[in-house]
Order: sequence, then C-alpha cells, then structure tokens
Amino acid sequence: MRPILFWRIMAKTEIASLGEFGLIKELTKDIKPVQPSTLKGVGDDCAVMNFGNDSKVLMTTDMLLEGIHFNLEYVPLKHLGYKAAVVNFSDIYAMNGTPTQITVSLGISKRFSVEDIEALYAGVRLACERYGVDIVGGDTCASMTGLTISITCLGVAKEKDIVYRNGAKLNDLICVSGNLGTAYMGLQLLERERLANAEQPDFAGKEYLLERQLKPEARRDILEALRKAGVKPTAMMDVSDGLSSELMHICSQSGVGCCIYEDKLPIDFEAAALAEEMNLNIVTCALNGGEDYELLFTCSLDDYEKLIPIEDLYIIGHITKAEYGCNLIGRNGEEIALKAQGWNAFNE
Amino acid sequence: MRPILFWRIMAKTEIASLGEFGLIKELTKDIKPVQPSTLKGVGDDCAVMNFGNDSKVLMTTDMLLEGIHFNLEYVPLKHLGYKAAVVNFSDIYAMNGTPTQITVSLGISKRFSVEDIEALYAGVRLACERYGVDIVGGDTCASMTGLTISITCLGVAKEKDIVYRNGAKLNDLICVSGNLGTAYMGLQLLERERLANAEQPDFAGKEYLLERQLKPEARRDILEALRKAGVKPTAMMDVSDGLSSELMHICSQSGVGCCIYEDKLPIDFEAAALAEEMNLNIVTCALNGGEDYELLFTCSLDDYEKLIPIEDLYIIGHITKAEYGCNLIGRNGEEIALKAQGWNAFNE
Repeated sequence: MRPILFWRIMAKTEIASLGEFGLIKELTKDIKPVQPSTLKGVGDDCAVMNFGNDSKVLMTTDMLLEGIHFNLEYVPLKHLGYKAAVVNFSDIYAMNGTPTQITVSLGISKRFSVEDIEALYAGVRLACERYGVDIVGGDTCASMTGLTISITCLGVAKEKDIVYRNGAKLNDLICVSGNLGTAYMGLQLLERERLANAEQPDFAGKEYLLERQLKPEARRDILEALRKAGVKPTAMMDVSDGLSSELMHICSQSGVGCCIYEDKLPIDFEAAALAEEMNLNIVTCALNGGEDYELLFTCSLDDYEKLIPIEDLYIIGHITKAEYGCNLIGRNGEEIALKAQGWNAFNE
Repeated sequence: MRPILFWRIMAKTEIASLGEFGLIKELTKDIKPVQPSTLKGVGDDCAVMNFGNDSKVLMTTDMLLEGIHFNLEYVPLKHLGYKAAVVNFSDIYAMNGTPTQITVSLGISKRFSVEDIEALYAGVRLACERYGVDIVGGDTCASMTGLTISITCLGVAKEKDIVYRNGAKLNDLICVSGNLGTAYMGLQLLERERLANAEQPDFAGKEYLLERQLKPEARRDILEALRKAGVKPTAMMDVSDGLSSELMHICSQSGVGCCIYEDKLPIDFEAAALAEEMNLNIVTCALNGGEDYELLFTCSLDDYEKLIPIEDLYIIGHITKAEYGCNLIGRNGEEIALKAQGWNAFNE
C-alpha cells in the first residue's frame, strides 16, 4: 500500500496487543458529548438520548462479518438475518427498553444471488415482526469479499425505567436468565459436523443446541416478568461475550466485586452431555462461551422473594466489595478469579 | 458452499440484473411500519421518528467498504474517517435537520495497526467536532479482508421544518448548491496518478479537486442561509449518487417531471479544465459523477427574489408536469432525457 498523498504514520502497534476492548477504550477516550440530548454515550449496551420528553431514546449497533461472526457453510441466511436483528433487540432490552426501529446495511459480494439476499432479509423481517420493530432504512452495496451486515437499532424507555451497567450495589443478588454455554456448544457441534464432512450430519437430539446458536431470542419475557413482579434491576447487560466478561464490566463500572457459585450456574442438560462427549469443560463454556443473549442483572436483596417465582431465572451469586475482586466459588469451595476471556477475534 | 442444515433456494437471480435500487425496492416492498413512533420509513434520505414531542428524530446510515467505496492507496485514513461521518451528516441536512449523534462500527483486518485505526477515528472525531455531533457508540471487530466502516447518524428537526423528497410542485424552481462533478474529477485525478505510478504525483493547481473527493463538507451553511432568507424548500436531497439520479428520485416521488438547463449547471473551472485534459465530458460528470454532497432542492417560484442573494446557490431549472419526463436542455436548445446512471457498483 503506497499512499500518494501523505505518508502513513510509521509507528505500528498490532491491534491484537490491545484487544477489542483495549482498542475501543483507546479510540473513545476523552470523548465528551456536546449535544444536550446525549444522556449516555459510549460504554453501556446502548447510548441514551433525550429528545425532549419523558421517553428516552436508546441506540445500539452491531456489525457481523462473514468468516468472523458466521460461516455460511452451516448458517442458513434466513437464520443469520434473524439473529443479526435479535442481537440488537437484546441490547435494547438489556437497558430495560423496547426496540422500535432498525436500519439494515448490507455489503454483498457477487457470489450472492437476489434470492440469497431475500432469504437474509426475510429473517430480519421475521424478527422485526415478532418483536414489533420497524425497518426504517439502510444501505445496500457491493462488497469485494463476503457478506457484511450492520444493523443499528433504536428503542425507547422511560427515564425512570432505564437500567445501566453501573448501578450494582454491595450485597445485590446476581441473576441470569435461561442457561449459559448452550449457544457455544451449538457452535462446537456445527463445527464438528462441518469438519466430519459426513453425507448426513448427526444432530439427533441436539436440535436445541443448534437453535440457541443459529436462532437466539432476546429475553423480553424476563423483563415483562420482572415488571409484573415489581422488580427493577440495579444493573443489567445481555450476555453476548460471555458471563465472566459481562460480570467484570458490571463490577468495574459499578465499583464493586462479585462472587458467583459454580453449582448455581444454569446449564442445559444437552449442552453438558455434548461437552462431556467432546471433552470440554461445560463450566468454562458457560463462563466464556458467549452468544447466549440471556439477561444478566443485579437487584436488591429485598427483591429475593419476588424473584423466586419467576420462571427460567436463576440467582447465581451476589455483589461484594471491590477489593474482593470477581470470583467463582467452585463445587469444592475453592475460589477462582474470573477472567474476561470473552471472545477476542483480534487474537485468533 | 455446502449448507448442512437446509438446501439454499435454487433460483439464482444475479443482483446486477436488479441493480442497487432494484434490490432495495425488492427487499423493502410491503414493509408496513407498526410502531406509532415511525413517521417515515424507507424511501428518503432519512427515516423520521416521533418519540412524543415537537422535535422529530431523523436516522440515516451509510456503509463504506474497502475496494468499493475507497482505495487506501490514495485515501488517507484520517480523510476517510472524516468523509464517512460527513456523508451521514449530509443526509440529515438533506431533510432540513441537525445531526446530533452517531455510532461508528468498524471491521478491521490484521494489516491495520492501532495507529491506522486511530488516524481513521481522528478523522471521524474531527468531523464530529466541527459539526457538533456526539459519538455515542459503535462496534469494533476483526475482519477477514479489508476495512469496513458503517456509521449511523441521528438528528433532530421540528416537524414543520422537515423537507421530504416528495413535495416538489409544478413550476417550482430547482436549485443546487456549490458545484457538480468536481468530486468525480478528483477521483479521476487520483486514479490517473495512481496508474502513472510516478515518484511524485502531479496535483499542482488541482488541490481543490482532491479536497472535494477526499474531504467533502455537508452544506449546513446553505440551510442556514435559506432559513435566514425565509425560504423552506418543497423537496430536498443531497447529491450522493449524481444529479440525474437524485432529480429522478424527487420527480418520481413527487409525481412531477423536470427541466434543467445545461448552461445553468454549476461547474468548477479546475474540474472543467481537467475533464478537457482527460477527454471527458464535464456535463456528463456533473450529471452522473456523484459524491458531491451538495444540496439539491426545489422551492416555490414565489421565493425567487429571496434565493438570488444567497451565495453559492444556483437555479438550474424548474419542475414540470410528470408527462414531460426529466429532461436536460442542451446549449443548443436540444432536449435530452436524463438517465439515472448514478453509481451502480453491482454492475461494475
């Protein structure tokens, strides 16, 4: 690459040395909002804007790149479109908001046909229909290589309802919906069958794992249940990078530590069986697998009684002082420091 | 590509057979907004949302892909970041709004260093600073190949101020700011010097052409001048694909025709000289070049006197009945039908 206008800066720091979170931190440091309408900028699941009344506007965006986020050898395009939309809705729900509009930008290489893109878009539209969200715009352009999907989602929430990452308090309960590590095991299964290259892949009895990987849902049902029960979380995120990574975000932003229990982690039976079969540690998968799109939140100890009757919701630990750090208590009582292994594509 | 879950649909229609606009039309047909907050969805420079008060929220998005929209052999990363932000602001201004927030998503391959991405981001931040816009979020991920930039911009406008594409009326004046075809000539110049591969590229006296291509500005100054003069356009767009293409959008959405005059088209002297030198027709470049990011609008004939004193604004024709079609009157009085040649990357 020979720049003919200006020489590029000579210093060369590899992005892998910072990682995704390090790079984002570097790029967004010292950003100071100037618009009075910006309530919250970079640093949570969504940005929050105030355009002049009680309902605040939430905004989030996700980019999916072929070969990094998905492999079209086993991801059907309609599922991909569905997932690309739902992961954005999940970020809006993670602020206790309601998704309302999306824009959909596609970069498409020549190997895709109109029917391919229609299948992809049908998935986006199906997700929008199910979650009551409008497609209001986008950009469609040719790409030199592969498929790129970039979706931005708007949502609304009353100011008093918004839940940020930074509100966890000492002794708060830590809760998570659904189960963890299942989407990751679905991915392992798809990869195994791809490599086996058999005439007929073996998915018998494991359909749920595939569904969790290929067609995740956003947990608005959990928010509805919490609202009915009269519980407002003190901090919340969705689990996209992995439980450890997300918990560490909540703790560092709230200035607290946490303690979670291995035997409380919700783990799906099929996922555990496949992990056993594939010689993987299901707890590690649950902590670091990512892509579960479950809701992780903290709430006051006073809400304990209200939480118990809520289906598919699990209390996995509690918030501690910051000095304690972020720890997992193993089945034998041993204390293991959590690591934000997460999902760092720059290191792969 | 061997799908292991579902066979892909067998019909294969090449995307080039529909083109970008045809594909978008196909994908977005029958989309019916369900959210009461959606005032205007797909089909204009921006979507328009009503979140409950007098100020409406505008939303637009643009995706830039390496090898399609830019060539890093001659586009400095800082300029690229600046341009990627400004083209979004331009869409907000094209609705007579004010840009307020953006999200910035980047797909980055291994050949980029932290310093490269910092340079890119510095350009985005500079544009934001100059236009008073906040960066409120984004997504940063690894890419298998090349650089992908996807920016989504929010803006605000009072409902009574918003200008859509569909408001042009019979006998309205057609106006355009700045000059046309200049950014395209800047691109031709860069390409020529790239191919010449000389030790020292020859840009002497042509810096303005480069600036128009590499570092365009959005014309908020024109909107301010119109506001001061008490003129509200009846229809408006920014010129990103080319004058012909944009005029045909305004006419088809407004149900009118148009007549513009070759000798009224604002053409920069340097651009004309280079076109002569390169044996290109500068009028064709002005009609179809694209990337000028000037404002194209129609307004009532009654505003004629108010328009005249506004600097850098040109009246190039008028709106006719739909039956007349969209025509250019040549210097010798000949009538030439406009074609939306635009910029169709799927055909290249």
